[in-house]
Amino acid sequence: MSYESELNAVIGAIAPTDPAAEEAAWTRLDNLTKPPRSLGRVEGLAARVACVQGTDRPSVAKKVVLLMAGDHGVVEEGVAVYPQDVTWQMVANIVGKGAAINQFAASVGADVLVHDVGVIRDLSDMPGVVIRKVAPGTRNMAVGPAMTREEAAQAVMVGVQAARDAVAAGAELISTGDMGIGNTTPASALTAVFADAEPALVCGRGTGLDDEGVAHKVAVVERALQVNGVNELDPLGVLAAVGGLEIAALAGVVLGAAEQRTCVVFDGFISGSAALAAVRICPAAADYLFPSHRSVEPGHSVQLDALGLEPVLELDMRLGEGTGGALTMGIIDAACRMISNMATFAEAGVSDKE
Amino acid sequence: MSYESELNAVIGAIAPTDPAAEEAAWTRLDNLTKPPRSLGRVEGLAARVACVQGTDRPSVAKKVVLLMAGDHGVVEEGVAVYPQDVTWQMVANIVGKGAAINQFAASVGADVLVHDVGVIRDLSDMPGVVIRKVAPGTRNMAVGPAMTREEAAQAVMVGVQAARDAVAAGAELISTGDMGIGNTTPASALTAVFADAEPALVCGRGTGLDDEGVAHKVAVVERALQVNGVNELDPLGVLAAVGGLEIAALAGVVLGAAEQRTCVVFDGFISGSAALAAVRICPAAADYLFPSHRSVEPGHSVQLDALGLEPVLELDMRLGEGTGGALTMGIIDAACRMISNMATFAEAGVSDKE
Repeated sequence: MSYESELNAVIGAIAPTDPAAEEAAWTRLDNLTKPPRSLGRVEGLAARVACVQGTDRPSVAKKVVLLMAGDHGVVEEGVAVYPQDVTWQMVANIVGKGAAINQFAASVGADVLVHDVGVIRDLSDMPGVVIRKVAPGTRNMAVGPAMTREEAAQAVMVGVQAARDAVAAGAELISTGDMGIGNTTPASALTAVFADAEPALVCGRGTGLDDEGVAHKVAVVERALQVNGVNELDPLGVLAAVGGLEIAALAGVVLGAAEQRTCVVFDGFISGSAALAAVRICPAAADYLFPSHRSVEPGHSVQLDALGLEPVLELDMRLGEGTGGALTMGIIDAACRMISNMATFAEAGVSDKE
Repeated sequence: MSYESELNAVIGAIAPTDPAAEEAAWTRLDNLTKPPRSLGRVEGLAARVACVQGTDRPSVAKKVVLLMAGDHGVVEEGVAVYPQDVTWQMVANIVGKGAAINQFAASVGADVLVHDVGVIRDLSDMPGVVIRKVAPGTRNMAVGPAMTREEAAQAVMVGVQAARDAVAAGAELISTGDMGIGNTTPASALTAVFADAEPALVCGRGTGLDDEGVAHKVAVVERALQVNGVNELDPLGVLAAVGGLEIAALAGVVLGAAEQRTCVVFDGFISGSAALAAVRICPAAADYLFPSHRSVEPGHSVQLDALGLEPVLELDMRLGEGTGGALTMGIIDAACRMISNMATFAEAGVSDKE
């Protein structure tokens, strides 16, 4: 069976959530010992998780960041500030618990699982890395497709399987996370296509480009879109042409979580391009998708608008790795504890409004 | 010794933080394995905690919400939506772990300590409540001063002592929290005075007033300010005239934390009025004061502006109890773990920019 037909089976298995469960959650929320709706957006998060889990006592006690790593042929065009070796060096740093995501995840009690989907260097002897390498990096999308269609489907299925494995191990909330030097360039290309936006509106400074660097990135994205003649009605084809192996895998994480009826938070700009791809591949997956923060990367706001989502946090972050996702998992955890464990007015013997 | 002279000793003991510690923190932050400043405001939080703690490896592992409860004579004017009994009923609910603050605090690993500073009902037989009652509720500020000057100073010292006790028990981060039916009315009056704002700009719906109720609240606040002839250059006198026992105690929590060189997060509108009072009483306390969320209550933004602080979270909450403070403690925890435990580029063997 081809990876694309496996993916089609996943798409067919994703069902929308039941709005009745969300209504039941609001009934419970409005009976808890607080003025109705006084917890604002935290109540909305609780209701959405309740809807996904089909219960008015949802739980996200067990949390995991599924972090996908890959390299990008397009760095040949000089779009990255850091050398390409930083991809594997940061993978090593993450399994060694030295990266930002390790600390943010620890602060909310989440595990971090790093997957090699497309790092150039052989990481098979690096303890702690889940090896799911589809290819040692993508090809340069500015001169031709970054991946074959089957490579892209295989990378998506890596993410689907990672989500399935996480849920089988008990995960109740998943966040996406990324690592890949140069990956804001394919993320910009994907966002331009899936959000129907000019490349100049979705290309930002990444890890630290100056104005000239950003202008060059815009030109590279424009060239990649032209060379590959992408068709937005074929989202897997778009992912293959101007995506990345780790980005495709992150789209798979969203689809796999949706298949498993599990809430999935998407992190920043790279994860946002993957979330957009996932929702274009299967619109029903949107019911399981939660925003996290608003990245400083300008294309992230374009993605959020295209997805119709308001971010939970606005902290001027732009790191990726799942850092915004992890912090947001903490807020969602508070939301679930609130709806599940608070006393009602009747239970607590508290008088309601006069 | 009078309570006011005890308070003056506290004010004299509060010293500004050392900016050199913040500079050292930024040096460390810029050497950690991430693009410089890519964690945005989270880095700023880490630097501020580092400055308060005088180390570039700060910790806020032990966290506590100091929740102060009190009743308000001004409810005679019909400014509250819930009956006055809800104050003690909610205190019972909080010690029984049924309130929102219990769940939010649990989600960030914080303890909650409830103090009776001025609840009308005798709570001495309610297990778990710290009894520090100064008076059984304030008097109606619309007809005269809510407290005597000495009562207000005593209530402030309740908060100072609560902060001292918390720090002695190991607390590294404190959040304020409030409970008191009717307390948005004194909080509005204090904000009008300390932020030099029209009452109409700082009176909101509280727990659920309609437009007519808000207009009535504005009239009550205007009357209280007129009847009491408050002088903003005497902040303790203002607190006594138009404050509340739990609000005075929360101002004391801020002052006590500052005296103990400990970071203190202030919650929503009630806590914001206490934070403003504390900073007017002792401007150096501002170095130890951290914002949390932006409440829907319009006066909260006025307070934040007057304090020159940007909130960390904007989640459309308006509950109080310390709920916004608790969530923010989680973000500050992530910030401290990040600066203290991340690897530097050199330690991790990660290449820096080319």
